[in-house]
Amino acid sequence: MIKASMFFAMAMLSLSITTQATADVTGNRARGMATLDVITGGDTKRRLDTLTDIAPELGEWIVDFAYGDVVSRPGLDLRSRELATVAALTALGNAQPQLKSHIGGALNAGCTPQEILEVIIQMAVYAGFPASLNGISAAREVFNARGINAASQTDD
Amino acid sequence: MIKASMFFAMAMLSLSITTQATADVTGNRARGMATLDVITGGDTKRRLDTLTDIAPELGEWIVDFAYGDVVSRPGLDLRSRELATVAALTALGNAQPQLKSHIGGALNAGCTPQEILEVIIQMAVYAGFPASLNGISAAREVFNARGINAASQTDD
Amino acid sequence: MIKASMFFAMAMLSLSITTQATADVTGNRARGMATLDVITGGDTKRRLDTLTDIAPELGEWIVDFAYGDVVSRPGLDLRSRELATVAALTALGNAQPQLKSHIGGALNAGCTPQEILEVIIQMAVYAGFPASLNGISAAREVFNARGINAASQTDD
Amino acid sequence: MIKASMFFAMAMLSLSITTQATADVTGNRARGMATLDVITGGDTKRRLDTLTDIAPELGEWIVDFAYGDVVSRPGLDLRSRELATVAALTALGNAQPQLKSHIGGALNAGCTPQEILEVIIQMAVYAGFPASLNGISAAREVFNARGINAASQTDD
Amino acid sequence: MIKASMFFAMAMLSLSITTQATADVTGNRARGMATLDVITGGDTKRRLDTLTDIAPELGEWIVDFAYGDVVSRPGLDLRSRELATVAALTALGNAQPQLKSHIGGALNAGCTPQEILEVIIQMAVYAGFPASLNGISAAREVFNARGINAASQTDD
Amino acid sequence: MIKASMFFAMAMLSLSITTQATADVTGNRARGMATLDVITGGDTKRRLDTLTDIAPELGEWIVDFAYGDVVSRPGLDLRSRELATVAALTALGNAQPQLKSHIGGALNAGCTPQEILEVIIQMAVYAGFPASLNGISAAREVFNARGINAASQTDD
Repeated sequence: MIKASMFFAMAMLSLSITTQATADVTGNRARGMATLDVITGGDTKRRLDTLTDIAPELGEWIVDFAYGDVVSRPGLDLRSRELATVAALTALGNAQPQLKSHIGGALNAGCTPQEILEVIIQMAVYAGFPASLNGISAAREVFNARGINAASQTDD
Repeated sequence: MIKASMFFAMAMLSLSITTQATADVTGNRARGMATLDVITGGDTKRRLDTLTDIAPELGEWIVDFAYGDVVSRPGLDLRSRELATVAALTALGNAQPQLKSHIGGALNAGCTPQEILEVIIQMAVYAGFPASLNGISAAREVFNARGINAASQTDD
Repeated sequence: MIKASMFFAMAMLSLSITTQATADVTGNRARGMATLDVITGGDTKRRLDTLTDIAPELGEWIVDFAYGDVVSRPGLDLRSRELATVAALTALGNAQPQLKSHIGGALNAGCTPQEILEVIIQMAVYAGFPASLNGISAAREVFNARGINAASQTDD
Repeated sequence: MIKASMFFAMAMLSLSITTQATADVTGNRARGMATLDVITGGDTKRRLDTLTDIAPELGEWIVDFAYGDVVSRPGLDLRSRELATVAALTALGNAQPQLKSHIGGALNAGCTPQEILEVIIQMAVYAGFPASLNGISAAREVFNARGINAASQTDD
Repeated sequence: MIKASMFFAMAMLSLSITTQATADVTGNRARGMATLDVITGGDTKRRLDTLTDIAPELGEWIVDFAYGDVVSRPGLDLRSRELATVAALTALGNAQPQLKSHIGGALNAGCTPQEILEVIIQMAVYAGFPASLNGISAAREVFNARGINAASQTDD
Repeated sequence: MIKASMFFAMAMLSLSITTQATADVTGNRARGMATLDVITGGDTKRRLDTLTDIAPELGEWIVDFAYGDVVSRPGLDLRSRELATVAALTALGNAQPQLKSHIGGALNAGCTPQEILEVIIQMAVYAGFPASLNGISAAREVFNARGINAASQTDD
């Protein structure tokens, strides 16, 4: 899981890479950036910048509310949270870009490729085979881009 | 989590309560019943019986395929699987009876009420507040029926 | 709106039982009413009346467009159309009242209870077990109200 | 539309009925409560209290983020926002309690019953007749509870 | 089907720019074409022609029913209708081509880019951030194709 | 997994053209392969192989459970089953690759192009025009790849 030291390193890093972080390290913005940096592997700012041209406030809410308020909550570890998100987006089946982001995010949060595949495969039961198959396609794409050999991830 | 001894006790129990279990304890039927018995708290047979009048094969597939093949797979622990299912059903928002079953199943599999609430609350980010609020209603109902005091489950 | 005299004329017509509107019924309104009367078993007017207080035009479009233009088309028989609708509403999982109506409509159009159950059961593959289970609940309710013994409808 | 005087009256009221409002009237909490009070007709606190037992933070985010950050934004009037929400929840079809709340909210924000019905009826085009019919049922229930005679709201 | 001569008559009529069909345009076909021409910016015929090869009747229903019967109704202005449609399609998240069409349609009906963005952003609350983010992508694409500088459309 | 020799045996079997598995094919695997070979036109093995690298068990369940247990059941003919699947996937609108597969599958199972179009068109009533239009796009693509002239398939 996320080691405390790594978490603080990320928090420190996020302070240096965002001009919007408030002075208070305990605030939503810093906490959201720190959590996002774990999920994105440090790529948070670049991703948020894609929203700057058209809906910058959406990016701010993603940091402050979605990740600062919600996903950073202490009651559940980030690995379980990312698996839950992968499950939900696979089942909904209408948000492939975000599903790919969170498959990557789950890996960055410390999930193994097998754990991610297990969640996606399980959705065949709860949302049908098409949803699961499209989740598998998303996973293959993310794994390939990272050089992960999916073939060796599950053994039946 | 599921203790090995409990697992085997359940497997034994399931052998006695189903006439359909094959002799081979490693088969889908027995494995599915054992996993279902953990999730339902031993109430599997009664629940399957509700399908006997109209679609008994659906009940068999739930045991053999859904829980024998998929949910029993070793690559992810049952607690994480139940949280993933709660996430998916909360996000889909169109299967309240099954969401309640799996909130109960998550508790039976060893999840704390707080972990379940965290997953449901998190869905506000990925599927919107209405989905999350209806998930909370389902959780309240399940918790109340079990005498769980939800009020003390989260601390912000 | 729909005149009572026309309604009875249509009801008589539908008694000559065709699962498709006959060629001599030219207008949308008459064709829609004829098809609806097959589906509702002659209960069309009462059902449309439930919309009169609040959205009568919705009722008119259901007759003229949905059933007069679309469902009455000659390219596919009414039985197959009702099974397709049962499939879609089971998969969507968010329109139980309409699903029940069309399970009844499928019976009225000449589908057997078993055929209807097969379609609902099949949705476990394409939309997941929860969707299929809730479809089964809808079918049980409709079958019970009609005194259909579901237990004898499928044999595995 | 919302008269400025009514808005400020609501803002003042909200300051007195919440113990959580910060001193700064321009903050999210106060703004969210003021907007919510328009939508709920002053019933905000009671509704939020239904979450206190189990997920109080969800209630806080509804005030601070959903209504303080998003719905209070100046770029679109509250009437149009409530109609957009009624459209979305009708189309999704899986959140009837929230749909009813927002039909009431649209009325409170100054929409006429006819405007609300028009949006719900329009969803027949974009999400199908079942979604629209279930939206009409929700509207009938809300209108009836308020003594609104729906029959006189549309003229075709 | 739609005669070219009638199309040009309608196109001329629509040039007299009304966001609502005038009273003297009585039939569904003419009213639907007039409303569609406002939404498509006069590009209706070309778009309908894309259906001629495979499902021409679908195109006719879009004109006669969807826009002639429903969207042309006088009870709500076309701007509000288009915003409602953008809200619904953003929330559903499974119809990107149509979402883009209606973002363009909203602009053609007189909505400002900011109003459209506000509705899409608002869907983060009711359908989750992924739905909203994918709606933003659709808007960016439409705005870019029209040379609209989205960056200056919202101010927080 | 599925042995090539068995695959060819099955392919031969399917040549004796039945839209239903014959009684002598007893096991799930063989029955599933036989049904899949009708649907895929003998292309089953190649399609399953696309899953071998990442989720081979998903491919096995598709054969054994989805097609061996469910879709091969005798209570409904394969043509009706494929039309039901096309209806469901068109309505859901979030699984275009699978919708295309099943439009091809419906053709292979003996449905006419017109019957398939009728089901897709009908979904405009139950799931809205956007779902239907995107289903039409999927059908056009499949028909074009097979040299089917869609223009001559419907006559209004």
